[in-house]
Amino acid sequence: MTVSEYIFDFLQRKGVETVYMVSGSSSMWLTDSLYKNKKLHAVCTHHEQVAAMAADLYGRKNGIPGVALVTIGPGATNAITGVAEAYVDSSPLFIISGQASSKLLSYEQKTGIRQHGTQSLNLEPLVSSITKYFAAVMDPADIRYHMERGYFEAMNGRRGPVWIDVPVDIQNRQVPEDMKPFSYQNSKDADSRDTRSMTSQNDFQEITQRISNAKRPLILAGGGMSKASVSAITQKLQIPVVTSRMGIDRIASDSQFFAGRIGAYGQRGAHFAIQQADLLLILGCRLSVSSIGYYPDRFAVNAYKIQVDIDPKELEKSDVPIDRKLCMSTDAFVDSLAATDKPECSEWVSYCKSLNTRYPVVIEDYHKCNPLNSYYFTSVLSRLAPEDASVVVDTGSVCNVVSQTWSVKREQQYFISGGLSCMGFWAASIGCCTDKKPVIVLSGDGSVSMNVQEFATLCYHNFPIKLFVYQNNGYMLIRHNQHNYMNDRFLGVGPESGVKTPDFCKVADAYGIPNRRISYGDNIEAKITEILSMDGAVICEVMLEQFGPLAPRIASKVMPDGSLKAAEFDDLAPFLNDDEKPVLFHDIAT
Amino acid sequence: MTVSEYIFDFLQRKGVETVYMVSGSSSMWLTDSLYKNKKLHAVCTHHEQVAAMAADLYGRKNGIPGVALVTIGPGATNAITGVAEAYVDSSPLFIISGQASSKLLSYEQKTGIRQHGTQSLNLEPLVSSITKYFAAVMDPADIRYHMERGYFEAMNGRRGPVWIDVPVDIQNRQVPEDMKPFSYQNSKDADSRDTRSMTSQNDFQEITQRISNAKRPLILAGGGMSKASVSAITQKLQIPVVTSRMGIDRIASDSQFFAGRIGAYGQRGAHFAIQQADLLLILGCRLSVSSIGYYPDRFAVNAYKIQVDIDPKELEKSDVPIDRKLCMSTDAFVDSLAATDKPECSEWVSYCKSLNTRYPVVIEDYHKCNPLNSYYFTSVLSRLAPEDASVVVDTGSVCNVVSQTWSVKREQQYFISGGLSCMGFWAASIGCCTDKKPVIVLSGDGSVSMNVQEFATLCYHNFPIKLFVYQNNGYMLIRHNQHNYMNDRFLGVGPESGVKTPDFCKVADAYGIPNRRISYGDNIEAKITEILSMDGAVICEVMLEQFGPLAPRIASKVMPDGSLKAAEFDDLAPFLNDDEKPVLFHDIAT
Repeated sequence: MTVSEYIFDFLQRKGVETVYMVSGSSSMWLTDSLYKNKKLHAVCTHHEQVAAMAADLYGRKNGIPGVALVTIGPGATNAITGVAEAYVDSSPLFIISGQASSKLLSYEQKTGIRQHGTQSLNLEPLVSSITKYFAAVMDPADIRYHMERGYFEAMNGRRGPVWIDVPVDIQNRQVPEDMKPFSYQNSKDADSRDTRSMTSQNDFQEITQRISNAKRPLILAGGGMSKASVSAITQKLQIPVVTSRMGIDRIASDSQFFAGRIGAYGQRGAHFAIQQADLLLILGCRLSVSSIGYYPDRFAVNAYKIQVDIDPKELEKSDVPIDRKLCMSTDAFVDSLAATDKPECSEWVSYCKSLNTRYPVVIEDYHKCNPLNSYYFTSVLSRLAPEDASVVVDTGSVCNVVSQTWSVKREQQYFISGGLSCMGFWAASIGCCTDKKPVIVLSGDGSVSMNVQEFATLCYHNFPIKLFVYQNNGYMLIRHNQHNYMNDRFLGVGPESGVKTPDFCKVADAYGIPNRRISYGDNIEAKITEILSMDGAVICEVMLEQFGPLAPRIASKVMPDGSLKAAEFDDLAPFLNDDEKPVLFHDIAT
Repeated sequence: MTVSEYIFDFLQRKGVETVYMVSGSSSMWLTDSLYKNKKLHAVCTHHEQVAAMAADLYGRKNGIPGVALVTIGPGATNAITGVAEAYVDSSPLFIISGQASSKLLSYEQKTGIRQHGTQSLNLEPLVSSITKYFAAVMDPADIRYHMERGYFEAMNGRRGPVWIDVPVDIQNRQVPEDMKPFSYQNSKDADSRDTRSMTSQNDFQEITQRISNAKRPLILAGGGMSKASVSAITQKLQIPVVTSRMGIDRIASDSQFFAGRIGAYGQRGAHFAIQQADLLLILGCRLSVSSIGYYPDRFAVNAYKIQVDIDPKELEKSDVPIDRKLCMSTDAFVDSLAATDKPECSEWVSYCKSLNTRYPVVIEDYHKCNPLNSYYFTSVLSRLAPEDASVVVDTGSVCNVVSQTWSVKREQQYFISGGLSCMGFWAASIGCCTDKKPVIVLSGDGSVSMNVQEFATLCYHNFPIKLFVYQNNGYMLIRHNQHNYMNDRFLGVGPESGVKTPDFCKVADAYGIPNRRISYGDNIEAKITEILSMDGAVICEVMLEQFGPLAPRIASKVMPDGSLKAAEFDDLAPFLNDDEKPVLFHDIAT
C-alpha cells in the first residue's frame, strides 16, 4: 500500500464517501489513489477555495471530516480561506495537499529561502495558525501517525481543520507494515483536556439549584450545541431558548420554547428576553461582538450567567462577566442535568414567545415594496421551503436578512459562514449534495460573483441546488455602511461606484443551467413553487431593492473624534418609542 | 490627517496612481480615504485574489509598488495567493487591509484564541512567511514608520510584498505631527546588506579576465536582470544570451545575441548552448528545477559558472556547483564590467543563434493539425502582436507552449506567474491597463475559469485586454501527466473525468463582452487581426487539440520503486537520434 492509498483508505474507513478536489501534477499520486479507491467519490470544483468550503460543509452536515484534495503552492493557498472558515466555525476538515519533493521542501524549511521547488511553498508557517494539526509527511512510515492524529484533532475537543502535506516523492512510496500509531496519551492537547479540572459535585449542585429556582431562565444556544441536546434540555427543563446565528437550526421556529435570535442584526424579542432573564445558560456560544453587541459588561445584565464551552480559550475571555464557567461538551452538560428539577416558569415561556410574535422582523410595509423587499421575499421562500432542505446562506446583507427572517422547520439544516463571513460561501453548498435532499442557497449578487466559476460544477453534476441570487446591484451591506458613515461617498458598492455584477440569468444560460427571474409584480409563490419542483440545479435571480432596509439592528453613530458609538443591546434601530417597548415580565408577574 | 489618509497620500507620493480593491465594512475608512484622494484611481475587482494579482503586475510593469486594498478576514485570506506569487516573483506589492478593532485584535494576538472579533483573523502568523514586512498598526503614531519601512522593504534588495493591517478603530484616527521615521540603519535587513562582503578588487579582476578569455561564454538572464542591463552587457561583451522563463522579455527574439530559452519546457538550442559553454554568467536567475532540470551537478557542466544575485539565500544553495558567487544587483555587476575586454567569440555567437534556428519549437507538422495545434496558433498570434503590447500568460500547458513559442518584440513586456504558477493569473492583466497600450492575454480554459468573475471587471472598464482562451477541454498539462504516468487513469482533467469548462463565447456574451471563436479551417490571421483592431476588451476562444504535444521537454520515466527518473538537460524529448544532434562547437572550431 502506498502513502496515497493509505490516506484515502484511512478516510474512507472513517466514513468519508466524497472528496472535493482540484487536480494538479504535484498531487498526481494522491489523485490517482483517489481514482483507484472505489469506495470514494470525487467531486471536482473549479477553484480550491470551493473544494475546501464544500468539504467544510460536508463535515458540518455529516459530523465526519470533510476532505479536500489540492495541489502544491497556489492550490494550497487558494484553499486557505475555506480552512480559516472551518477553523473559526469548528468544522472537522482534512486538507490533503501535494507538495514539491521532500528534498526541496526540507531545504525550504531549513533555510527560509523564498522558494526552491517550482510552485512550492513551505506551508507550515502559512497554515499552522488556522489548523489544529499540520504535518508535512517526510517519511512514509509516519503516515499512520499523521492520519490518526489528524483525525483525532479534527473530531475531538473543539473541532477544526487539519492539513496533511505530502511531497510528490513520498506520495507513491510503499508504507511499512509496522507503523507508529497515534495514541491519545501522546497528544499535548489531550493531556490538557484530561487534567482540566471539572466542576466538583458541590458546585454542580449549586448550578442545578440555581436552574430550578430561576424565575426567568433562558438558554442561549450556539453552534457548539447539538440539535439533540437542545431538544433534550428544553424537554427536561421547559425553559425558553434563544439562538446565536451559528445555532439557528438547533430549534424549530415553531417550538413553544423558541424565543428568537440575537445579534447585531437580530430579533427584538430575543434581545428583550436576554436583558430580562435572571439566569442565562450560554451553551456552546462564544459571545462574539456580532452576537452580543458592544457592551459585553451589560449583556444579560440581570442574569446569573453560566457558560459551557469545550474550548478553554473561549472561557478565558473576560469581557462578559460570567458567574460560572464549565469547560465541557454541551452534550455532557445536558446529560448531567438529568436529576435537575424544572423551574416554575411557564408564564415566562409564554411571555418570551409573545415578545417574539409582537416584534416581527418582516413588517407589513415590506410586502408592498417595488422592487421587492428582501425580508418579504425571504419570508415567502422560507414558508415554501421543504421540511428536509439544507439551507445555505452566503455572507453580507443576505446573511443578516435571511438569518433574521428564516423560519426553521424541524428537519432543516441551516449553514452560514459564521465566524469568517466569507463572500462566495454559497458554493459551499456543493458539499451538501451527497443525498438527494433539496438544497436551498441564498446569496447576494456580489457573493455569487466571487465563486461564479462553480456554475460549471452545478451544471456538470446537476446538483439539486436552487440558488436564489438576491440581486441588489452590488454589495448592499457596504452601501448602507457608506451611506450611514461616509455621507454617501460610495466606492466599490455598485454600478455607479465601480462594481457591476452581471445578469445571472444570462450567465446561467451560458453555463447551461435552467434559470428564472423573480421581480415585483410576479406571482412569487407560484414561481418559487415551480423552481422548487424542478429537478437539479436552478438559478433564480431575484430583483430586490438595492437600498433595502436592514433592521432591526444595533446602530452606531460617528462621534466627533472619529470613533463609533453603538446603542444598547436591547435598543435596536429603528429605535422604539417608550409606548412601543414591552412591559417587563417583572411588572406583569407582580 | 487620518491614518487612512496618510497611507494613500504616502503611496500617491511614491508614484502610485491606481489601487486595486474590493470594498468591505471593516476597511471603511481606508476605502473612504482612497475615495477622497483625488490623485488616486480605484479599480474594483470581484475577488481579492485578483486585486492582489493585478497590483502585483502593476508593480512589475511600472517598477513602483502595486497596491491592493482588501478587507478583514476572508478579504485578507483571499489575497494570499497573489501575495505568495509576488513574494516568489520578487514583485513590490503593498497590501493594505482592514481589521477588527485594535482591542479585539490584540486579544487575539495575546491569547491565540481562534477568533474574537467577527471576521477577524490575526494575520501576522498567516502572512509573515510570504511578506518582507508585516505590520498591524496598533498606534496612529506608528504609521509613518510602517509605511516608510514597508516601502523600503518592497523596493530594496530583492523586491517583494509587504502588508499593512489597519484595525478599524485606528483607520480614522488623526496622526500626530511628529512621527517616528524609518531609517535605513534601523533595518535589520539593511544592516545585513551593508555588512555583506563584496568581492574584492583582485577577485573581480580574475572574473573579468575569465570573461575576456572565454571561448564559449554565455549569459543566462533571469527575472532579476533588467532589460537595460541585458542590452548593456550584450553591447559591451557581444556574447550570447539565453533566458529563463522569468527573463523572457529581457532580450528581443530577433537579437543576434539571443540564443533561446531554457527550461523543462524549453528550446533545444539553448540547452545545447548551456552544456557547451565554457563560461556561464548566471545573472538574476535562481536556477530552479523547472529551469535547469533534475541534475544540477551536471548543469552547464563544462562552464566556469559565475552567479550574481541580490538575495544571499539564493547564493547559499549548493545544488549547482557555482565557481564564483557575487551578492549584488545585476545592474551593478554590469556597470562594473565597463573596463572588461570583450571575448573573441563571434563564431560562437553565430553557432548559438544557428542552433536556435535549427531546432525550432514550432515544427511543420503542427501547421496542419485539426483541431488547431497550440504551438502553431501561438506562432501566428505572436507574429501579429503589436510591438508595444503587454503579454500576460497564465499557467499550465499554455505557459509552456507560449513561453517556448513567443517571439518577443523589442518593446513588449512578458508577464507570467513564474515561481508560484498560479492558475487564474490571466486576470492579473487588469494591472497592465493603466495606459492605452494593448494587452494580450493567453490562458487555458481551466485557468480562465478560476477567475472568470473578472469578466465583469473587463466589461465595466472596457480594458484593452484581448483574452485568448486556449480551449483544450480542461487541464491539458495534467491530462498529459495522467497519460504519461497513470496509464490513462484520468481524474479531474476534462469532461469525461469530472471537469467541464463552459463555452466562453457564451459566458462573454452574458457579461457583455465582444467575443470571437477561432477553429481549424478559419482564416486565423484575419481573425486575429480583426480582434487586435477592436477597441476595448475582447474574448476569443481558440479551439485547440485537447491532447496536443508539449515539446521539447525534459521527460521522466517511472522506475520500479515508484520514483521518477528524468533525462539529461540537453536530451529533450522527443529524443533525437545521433544524426539529429548538433555538431559540437568544439569540433567545428578545431
